[in-house]
Amino acid sequence: MKNLNLQIGEDGGLRHFLSISGLNTALLIRILDTAESFAGVTEQTVKKVPLLRGKTIVNLFFEASTRTRTTFELAAKRLSADVLNINITQSAAVKGESLLDTLRNLEAMHVDMFVVRHADSGAAHFIASNVAPHTSVINAGDGRHSHPTQAMLDMFTIRRVKGPDFGRLRVAIVGDIMHSRVARSQIHALNLLNTGDVRIVAPKTLLPANCEVLGAHVFHDLREGIRDADVIIMLRLQRERMLGALLPSEHEYYELFGVTEEKLTVAKPDVTIMHPGPINRGVEMDSEVADGSRSVILEQVTHGIAVRMAVMSMAMYHREEAPE
Amino acid sequence: MKNLNLQIGEDGGLRHFLSISGLNTALLIRILDTAESFAGVTEQTVKKVPLLRGKTIVNLFFEASTRTRTTFELAAKRLSADVLNINITQSAAVKGESLLDTLRNLEAMHVDMFVVRHADSGAAHFIASNVAPHTSVINAGDGRHSHPTQAMLDMFTIRRVKGPDFGRLRVAIVGDIMHSRVARSQIHALNLLNTGDVRIVAPKTLLPANCEVLGAHVFHDLREGIRDADVIIMLRLQRERMLGALLPSEHEYYELFGVTEEKLTVAKPDVTIMHPGPINRGVEMDSEVADGSRSVILEQVTHGIAVRMAVMSMAMYHREEAPE
Amino acid sequence: MKNLNLQIGEDGGLRHFLSISGLNTALLIRILDTAESFAGVTEQTVKKVPLLRGKTIVNLFFEASTRTRTTFELAAKRLSADVLNINITQSAAVKGESLLDTLRNLEAMHVDMFVVRHADSGAAHFIASNVAPHTSVINAGDGRHSHPTQAMLDMFTIRRVKGPDFGRLRVAIVGDIMHSRVARSQIHALNLLNTGDVRIVAPKTLLPANCEVLGAHVFHDLREGIRDADVIIMLRLQRERMLGALLPSEHEYYELFGVTEEKLTVAKPDVTIMHPGPINRGVEMDSEVADGSRSVILEQVTHGIAVRMAVMSMAMYHREEAPE
Repeated sequence: MKNLNLQIGEDGGLRHFLSISGLNTALLIRILDTAESFAGVTEQTVKKVPLLRGKTIVNLFFEASTRTRTTFELAAKRLSADVLNINITQSAAVKGESLLDTLRNLEAMHVDMFVVRHADSGAAHFIASNVAPHTSVINAGDGRHSHPTQAMLDMFTIRRVKGPDFGRLRVAIVGDIMHSRVARSQIHALNLLNTGDVRIVAPKTLLPANCEVLGAHVFHDLREGIRDADVIIMLRLQRERMLGALLPSEHEYYELFGVTEEKLTVAKPDVTIMHPGPINRGVEMDSEVADGSRSVILEQVTHGIAVRMAVMSMAMYHREEAPE
Repeated sequence: MKNLNLQIGEDGGLRHFLSISGLNTALLIRILDTAESFAGVTEQTVKKVPLLRGKTIVNLFFEASTRTRTTFELAAKRLSADVLNINITQSAAVKGESLLDTLRNLEAMHVDMFVVRHADSGAAHFIASNVAPHTSVINAGDGRHSHPTQAMLDMFTIRRVKGPDFGRLRVAIVGDIMHSRVARSQIHALNLLNTGDVRIVAPKTLLPANCEVLGAHVFHDLREGIRDADVIIMLRLQRERMLGALLPSEHEYYELFGVTEEKLTVAKPDVTIMHPGPINRGVEMDSEVADGSRSVILEQVTHGIAVRMAVMSMAMYHREEAPE
Repeated sequence: MKNLNLQIGEDGGLRHFLSISGLNTALLIRILDTAESFAGVTEQTVKKVPLLRGKTIVNLFFEASTRTRTTFELAAKRLSADVLNINITQSAAVKGESLLDTLRNLEAMHVDMFVVRHADSGAAHFIASNVAPHTSVINAGDGRHSHPTQAMLDMFTIRRVKGPDFGRLRVAIVGDIMHSRVARSQIHALNLLNTGDVRIVAPKTLLPANCEVLGAHVFHDLREGIRDADVIIMLRLQRERMLGALLPSEHEYYELFGVTEEKLTVAKPDVTIMHPGPINRGVEMDSEVADGSRSVILEQVTHGIAVRMAVMSMAMYHREEAPE
């Protein structure tokens, strides 16, 4: 409830973009439709639209990620906004300034939007519940909680390949569900879009305790899990975050859960292969699969710009219109 | 005298902005008036003016400061200039290039303005006395010497709250005067604007040896120092710079010099509370004071953008007009 | 042959700019002429041209260099492109992503041009031979192999000072030839422009094994090497790269190969003094020489912006026109 109030303005528009949970089907479809209108722009010779000209967007990264920061910076620049990159691990924290004081200061400089990445779950919500009325917050990943722009670019990619009827699709998410903020957001989005069959496939040690409440069918065997799948989304094995005890070895993981052309024979012939990147080749999947004709992994990256342009412009414009 | 020549062009306009000392009252008022014209701009939806379009401004930071760098970068972008951030601690110094060679190289790339921050007092003056005629220098803090844009945004804030007649004001500066480049610049600015009563309040260990020549009345007791004050400016306790011997403990400092609502009862009822940030809550002041209705600490941050836009555009335009 | 195909499009235009080797005289002169048209722009008050507006250029630096990155960033901004700086040492490499996956991802974001710097010889060619058709690559220095924009700005500087007839010039390159990617590119460019006499002057320990095939006359004595020279190009002594065994001491190097006013008396009276920077004063040359009236070291820096603008716009426009 609180969540819903935070993200959605009084007129039903997008005020912040923090998590898929708390949004509704209509709003998700509006995001996808808006992204569709930007997808063409980024392919043109002159890729800029003047929608956010004169606006100030701050990439507030408490956790370093060149890749994610780059996609948001590009999206902001193609909307003609001014972008400032602030890496909090290097700066204010050193002087002992509190997060709220940092926020208040940036707001006072008339920043219009914060793109927030943080290692703690709930950080983006905390910030959104404390910003001034003139400021919007976009969650670029918080702890194990949520990564909603990644989920929306995945939905956009599925819709482009498979069409708008998610009801007839079987989608399998394979890999380290437990540590994945991406998986949580994907499952929420797939359910809001009324996907016919949402499955998660993982060894027991990589499933969260409450996985049955996530809204997906659970499989511990890869071939069973991806049988007749229309879409397979692999997750990145977060090697740096995992405790040694959870996995016997990367090699054994690959044997059991790594996707190969051979294992793919049980899926639909036109199965679509997705991965949020960066890929650990030979761990989550074979290079033959990653680079094969059914892979849309690079299309996901392209769509990420359009989806981020959509979310940023919707949140900015909602705010603008609200006071009138 | 040298100072005056460096900062002021032959027509009396601002050529560099290095320290308050060496400027005159008329110029200070011109800066405040120009900042007033920009203060409205930064509150608009489209915050950019094309004044410095096509100009190149380099933030040349020999001492890291995300906060200060951010304010100058935003001010430059809102004037439509191109901004380059160069952190000298990481780069040229490593290759053994001298400061003058670094300067000559950047000048040769037709940089129009340097915003300089350096741990050594006098660094900005040194650079200004060596740059090419087509280049201006703005001091963003040099050692314990000067931080003139901070002082001017404080003056701007006082004028906005208390009106243009500084003659009827009692202003008390409280805290670590000895290590504070901010305090030096504030005292000079307050005196140039003919402030009625300028006071500094600090323990003896945090006062410079020559404090009587600064042009302020010295107090060692907080309640005496802020009695009937119209404005109280607290300074940040530079914990990282202070030797252990100067202060018994932060707690004892707070007991004696930390500003609380209770201690404030001796000041004027409408006393204005200021701090350059970031605040050490519970050290320089209570949170109740920092976030209270008489605090203008966040307004200071907002005004910092307008004042920096004013100083940058004045220095740039003076240079342009000079040769004609 | 492969090299030629990579750099030059089917219509003979510049597709990538990777090395001087593989280009032809006409193309070098076209680069110099285009740079001439930009040289005036960078001296104007408003230095921007809208040629690359809406284009995205990524500075992909696998080897840190603030100086080189700055010149490319300035050149791109003065062409009105959007610039992203990505330091690969800090980012993707940490997550174990391969170079090709990093490239594919950036291409998928519709990046138009990569400016690449890498410690390995051949890295820029490798990247150029793997990028998508819509992407151009500019080599900003790869290992000991090539640094073609530096060579072209040197040619531009020589042409500006000595006129377009390189046939009547004697040019001596002095210093650490063995470790210098700059020297290789300079010798190629000087030969393509039909320079009358190209000389390299170095101790035997700082010459590559195959130096006779470079296309230059080899001298081991400074006075002999620079006798009657029209142009002397000193190289930076890459202290950080050199093994202790190659040089007895910097002092001894200076005694034998350091250029002084006294030694210069054997060169032409109007000899032009060049150095790619940053200078080690008192090692490669005396300060009297570096700052003297015959030195054009800072002009080289200025011309570097114009030459980079030329190469970037030519590669971008060739690509654009090619499909028509």
